[in-house]
Amino acid sequence: MKKRVITISREFGSGGHSIGKAVAERLGISFYDQELLDKIAAETGFSKEFIEEAAEYSTAKNSLLFNLVMNRSLHGRTEPSPADTIYFAQAKIIKNLSERESCVIVGRCGDYILRDNNDCLHIFIYSDTDDRAKRILERYGENEKPIQKRIADKDTRRKIYYSHYTDRPWGIPQYYDLCLNSGALGEEVSVNIITNVFKG
Amino acid sequence: MKKRVITISREFGSGGHSIGKAVAERLGISFYDQELLDKIAAETGFSKEFIEEAAEYSTAKNSLLFNLVMNRSLHGRTEPSPADTIYFAQAKIIKNLSERESCVIVGRCGDYILRDNNDCLHIFIYSDTDDRAKRILERYGENEKPIQKRIADKDTRRKIYYSHYTDRPWGIPQYYDLCLNSGALGEEVSVNIITNVFKG
Repeated sequence: MKKRVITISREFGSGGHSIGKAVAERLGISFYDQELLDKIAAETGFSKEFIEEAAEYSTAKNSLLFNLVMNRSLHGRTEPSPADTIYFAQAKIIKNLSERESCVIVGRCGDYILRDNNDCLHIFIYSDTDDRAKRILERYGENEKPIQKRIADKDTRRKIYYSHYTDRPWGIPQYYDLCLNSGALGEEVSVNIITNVFKG
Repeated sequence: MKKRVITISREFGSGGHSIGKAVAERLGISFYDQELLDKIAAETGFSKEFIEEAAEYSTAKNSLLFNLVMNRSLHGRTEPSPADTIYFAQAKIIKNLSERESCVIVGRCGDYILRDNNDCLHIFIYSDTDDRAKRILERYGENEKPIQKRIADKDTRRKIYYSHYTDRPWGIPQYYDLCLNSGALGEEVSVNIITNVFKG
């Protein structure tokens, strides 16, 4: 079946953002990555920073932030947590976009949210840690945390968030049509493969 | 770097054999799948049937077959097991082939055995259970075991064998350059992707 929408799930630092952007430009279709944050912010009233935090919350389950985001208190849960509110808003937005137009959607559980759409192409982009470290340092520079720890923390957060909302393990091939090792293949080859498959 | 050798790891029934064969034909290079069995049989003196059994031995670790293949007895292990002998022979054969000629190698831990060869392209081919069931029934027909159980058993055996000799989990993207969902993409598209990447 001819594809209309591409979802890209990606490891932090794997170049998934640039690959997705290049694919969208090559195909002349819309690209949603950070743009989704604006829409979710408008829909929920939360700040973009808070939404980003909610999607990759602390792995320390007893942290103040985790409890705030998940709305857990000693007295039990009384209403949907902010994280739930954000997730349901993003699911609605992603579904609407996919119905309205041909586009590339990066992250935010797009693969799961659109899992039953036969006209979606689901891609997972990954790379080895050294390659990701190089890309992250080039793009964002260093910070106080050692790069290997930044990568490990981000991976853990994405895994926890993804599994929490999808009840699936994160990053296993079976949920994707195509998994690309961007470090081994290079970004240009990755873009070519995706655009060729999309065009059918 | 220009690639010389392709290894294909594949789920049972995913079409990895036909895809690999078509890729080799398209590229005009050698194809090794069942052909490896002949070479291992010649090298070790074991029958092809025994070699196949050794590579996917029973998951019942206390079964007679498992103990025979792994050469485990109540009195402890005294020499390399037949399975070890087979594994070391296949590793030697696969390394020699990869040095001698450009080729496609299917299964037998080829991805792991050639993990340090930069001129190898490592592919994992998979598909959903319904698609695999269809392909298996078309190729091998029914037997006394329900198809879902045949698939589950074979998956478990491959996982155990692979992990035993490679100390890696089986079928996770990080060990491959490219993972292709043959059911979603189709065999023809899978062949195109691999040959294009190989040609660079």
